[in-house]
Amino acid sequence: MKTQIFSILVDNTTGVLSRVAGLFSRRGYNITSITANTTANPKFTRITIAVPGDELILEQIENQLRKLQDVRHIKKLADRESVIRELMLVKVRVDLPHRPEIMTISDIYHGKIVDIDDYSMMISVVGLPSKLEAFLDLLKNYEILELARTGITGLDRGSEDIQYLE
Amino acid sequence: MKTQIFSILVDNTTGVLSRVAGLFSRRGYNITSITANTTANPKFTRITIAVPGDELILEQIENQLRKLQDVRHIKKLADRESVIRELMLVKVRVDLPHRPEIMTISDIYHGKIVDIDDYSMMISVVGLPSKLEAFLDLLKNYEILELARTGITGLDRGSEDIQYLE
Repeated sequence: MKTQIFSILVDNTTGVLSRVAGLFSRRGYNITSITANTTANPKFTRITIAVPGDELILEQIENQLRKLQDVRHIKKLADRESVIRELMLVKVRVDLPHRPEIMTISDIYHGKIVDIDDYSMMISVVGLPSKLEAFLDLLKNYEILELARTGITGLDRGSEDIQYLE
Repeated sequence: MKTQIFSILVDNTTGVLSRVAGLFSRRGYNITSITANTTANPKFTRITIAVPGDELILEQIENQLRKLQDVRHIKKLADRESVIRELMLVKVRVDLPHRPEIMTISDIYHGKIVDIDDYSMMISVVGLPSKLEAFLDLLKNYEILELARTGITGLDRGSEDIQYLE
């Protein structure tokens, strides 16, 4: 099933997040990832939702989203026309002699070591979800102690068709 | 008002996100940022919520969160003991002669140029929210066309006190 990515500009009001998320869950749709934060204009929040699903039903949800009072603008982000990124923090169990191996994997993915102790290293990596998956795949022989991913955010490429709401 | 950061490990079930977000909005709390995605174990989702607020009331919300069936573990991330990061994409209006200025600002903040056309550049930056704010401050003389922030995610430093749920 294809993943669709909705970039939704909403008024920064109390409860807007659960109203938006509720529209998906009431249809039985489990959101893959969600990110939300204010834009350059603090009056607006951008919610980015990745959800796998049937195009027809997601179109219906999109129509319902448009009817919500807080929703100002909805855009679907497409692979080629958009920059889509996600941030991941991974804590790996690793002792001193094996540190260089982790450093090498991290370097290849332009990761950054953000924390280290005698038994573990924490790496921060940014990329498309598929890149983060490939990174995790390289770490499959190590024990992953903890993992946190932001979920994706994105913007359309270029300077055309911009919403000047912000 | 101090911002509190909740790192909540939940079962990956339909509607868990709106249930968790709903607990905050019903109390009139406007979430500053939310990020959510699966962990190393696809059975679990990690939701990271930043919310400004009264410590006492947030403690009450935390107690209510613990009562939710889907909630497996709640941790509050603290500045010194945790690595806290956010990803931001910023699209700036810039013509060819001014590109080097944007490159310089981006370099200082270890940003990456992820898209460019005749009238704009898109930069990806990672850091603490305060770092991202400082970055935006440096761009105040340019027109920001679009902006997308993931909201924060984070993990505790070190290898002690880890939840082996994942």
